[in-house]
Amino acid sequence: MTPPFRLGIAGLGTVGTGVLEIIQQDAALLSRKTCRDIYISAVSARARHKDRGVSLSNFDWEENPIDLASRPDIDVFIELIGGTKGVSKEAVETALISGKDVITANKAMLAIHGIELAELAEKNGCCIRYEAAVAGGIPVIKALQEGLIGNRISRVMGVMNGTCNYILTRMEKANMSYKEAFAEADALGFLEADPNLDIGGIDAGHKLAILSAIAFGCPPNFNTINLEGIDQVTIEDIKAAADMGFKIKLLGVSQKTTRGLEQRMQPCLVPALSSLGQLEGGTNMVVIEGDSVEQIILRGPGAGKGPTASAVVSDICDLARGWKIPTFGLPVKNLSPIENSLSDLPASYYLRMLLLDESGTLAKITGVLSDHSISIDRMRQYSHDDKTAPVLIVTHKTTRNAIDEAVTEMTENKLTSQPPVAFRIEDL
Amino acid sequence: MTPPFRLGIAGLGTVGTGVLEIIQQDAALLSRKTCRDIYISAVSARARHKDRGVSLSNFDWEENPIDLASRPDIDVFIELIGGTKGVSKEAVETALISGKDVITANKAMLAIHGIELAELAEKNGCCIRYEAAVAGGIPVIKALQEGLIGNRISRVMGVMNGTCNYILTRMEKANMSYKEAFAEADALGFLEADPNLDIGGIDAGHKLAILSAIAFGCPPNFNTINLEGIDQVTIEDIKAAADMGFKIKLLGVSQKTTRGLEQRMQPCLVPALSSLGQLEGGTNMVVIEGDSVEQIILRGPGAGKGPTASAVVSDICDLARGWKIPTFGLPVKNLSPIENSLSDLPASYYLRMLLLDESGTLAKITGVLSDHSISIDRMRQYSHDDKTAPVLIVTHKTTRNAIDEAVTEMTENKLTSQPPVAFRIEDL
Repeated sequence: MTPPFRLGIAGLGTVGTGVLEIIQQDAALLSRKTCRDIYISAVSARARHKDRGVSLSNFDWEENPIDLASRPDIDVFIELIGGTKGVSKEAVETALISGKDVITANKAMLAIHGIELAELAEKNGCCIRYEAAVAGGIPVIKALQEGLIGNRISRVMGVMNGTCNYILTRMEKANMSYKEAFAEADALGFLEADPNLDIGGIDAGHKLAILSAIAFGCPPNFNTINLEGIDQVTIEDIKAAADMGFKIKLLGVSQKTTRGLEQRMQPCLVPALSSLGQLEGGTNMVVIEGDSVEQIILRGPGAGKGPTASAVVSDICDLARGWKIPTFGLPVKNLSPIENSLSDLPASYYLRMLLLDESGTLAKITGVLSDHSISIDRMRQYSHDDKTAPVLIVTHKTTRNAIDEAVTEMTENKLTSQPPVAFRIEDL
Repeated sequence: MTPPFRLGIAGLGTVGTGVLEIIQQDAALLSRKTCRDIYISAVSARARHKDRGVSLSNFDWEENPIDLASRPDIDVFIELIGGTKGVSKEAVETALISGKDVITANKAMLAIHGIELAELAEKNGCCIRYEAAVAGGIPVIKALQEGLIGNRISRVMGVMNGTCNYILTRMEKANMSYKEAFAEADALGFLEADPNLDIGGIDAGHKLAILSAIAFGCPPNFNTINLEGIDQVTIEDIKAAADMGFKIKLLGVSQKTTRGLEQRMQPCLVPALSSLGQLEGGTNMVVIEGDSVEQIILRGPGAGKGPTASAVVSDICDLARGWKIPTFGLPVKNLSPIENSLSDLPASYYLRMLLLDESGTLAKITGVLSDHSISIDRMRQYSHDDKTAPVLIVTHKTTRNAIDEAVTEMTENKLTSQPPVAFRIEDL
């Protein structure tokens, strides 16, 4: 039998504790499956004596994760600290320089410093695995990087921030305002310390950047993602979208166009009865489309102790078996940057506006749309008591530029009481 | 760079041709991803000169797949012939004895002779990979065996025969009888040469036996699966189920009980709005539940050239990287047979009956149910012109035995014009 596979775990929050629990509970089974004993040499965390419900007495303790990363008695360094720089990044670098493989759940670090770390890993003959970094318990990195390797991927998309999906679902189901649903999510502890990471689409954007790199063989490029948060979504939009047969989701889409790569993380309308439309609460979903496989949909819990620890343990067992793979599926020298191509792909749009109730306004609105070559698929005007008439329009396929110009013109010409709301409708 | 990875492909039907196409089209990319050239040494098929749309001129030709399996210039033997015995099994055995890894899409052979082949593979230090054997393009073997390795699996279930799901969907959508939908599927070439493999649940049962083995660490045991086909499903049942908020699916379920392992492949009712209920046409879906990950759902095309070839190429690349794994996730000596435990798990049932329209019959029916401790959740009686009254009942949780006994008693006492129809309602 191969010598034991020795782990050093840095960060014993929810996920780190979950990993300890699985490794301890299922040590014998995992050893039979990987034909190797899996053994925790040492751990490191901020508070040594905090009650985590698991005993640390069997492991060495390191005050400093950087010291843990270079210990000669570990084969893999598991970084569960978080943060894009500082101690977590330094510890990962130390581990790689010391010739140790790295497992991390740190999507932000990979999305921003991924190439630098992948280069360091290759230089030292090491490997970085990060199943837990995207979509929690869903084995999506494995599916995309290994399971669908025989495909030219055309589109990857998904709902990858459970907190945002929880807020949007609560608004719809409980008829809450955005502020009320946000407050509820906050009270339940669902939000990051900086809530903008969630609601601004940043956390989900990090995940999308990683999936894009694997799917399209390019370096992760978080900065070129068109990020729009969910704080612009109102209960009026959720109701109006429902009335037209749609739901609003914070949807990340990465897609090849004739001009380059389009990466978006923004509130979108999807058909209410589609797989994405039916996704409620904190659940995540990733849709992968390739030339051979057509469409694969993966769904599961996007966060939480058990699911995230499950993903980390999958990486541990792969590395225990000696299964190495380039960080983003290809050696760094083979990753080709793809030009950022935004708003190239035509789509239908949803427009909600409050028309000033004067004779001829609707004619003027439809005129503006027509001037920008936007044709109308469906339109509804609702009965109203005050001086503005709520109007919903679903357009035929057009471009984001045309929509933006039309919205500006309607606003400048004071046809609506406030700027019209426009959301993309994603084809599924 | 490692020496090239050399393939021998036996069977050039739809799937084999699809594999040739991907390997030829994406040779350079796959080589960069696996850090190794992937090279087809030789092929074998029934008709050498059949037009397959791809040229075979670059590969050696073997008339006999068994000769191909032992060629010194192949590293892996890819069996895409089909059939549980005869030449396909002999060729696989020859390859393993010759020290070559094997890739196969042959679910029947693995479900029936899996242990024998796994033992032969281990004895010769070889590996059998079979991602294409279950659920076509969905990387479910990889997800279950590798991605969810850190879980104690509690239930695996799925819709894994696209033809059956196509027939059931067409009955519902086009208001067709079973016979009409079957004839349509047949005319479209969707059925196996022996249609009972599809509609009898045998093909899907083979897949379930393989998933059970990986999920529960036992030898595959196809013979203990409770198989019921879809030919007993009538358009009346589909309509009645829809009226109660359900759809009928040929659902495979494998689940640990206190007494052992329960494996069923049978028509079941699932909530119409659930992920399984929404599954239409030939698409497959597998649901995996584990202690850490909670629930993962995978969805995608269950058959066809591209999707199945995509799965085979995934196995090719894993083996090109030297990634070996025991056939059913554990060495054969660690697989423990689990006792067959049928009808142990309580469930709700759907009952449809034609009551003989005589005074007091409904009282007698509810009396029979009550005598067997079956309580009623919902009941509907429909208006009727003739001498029988259609009645639908959804029960609270009960056992299959109780249902079977009640149905027998109703039939013997001539309370219904024909034996009541009973389908299990699966909890999701």
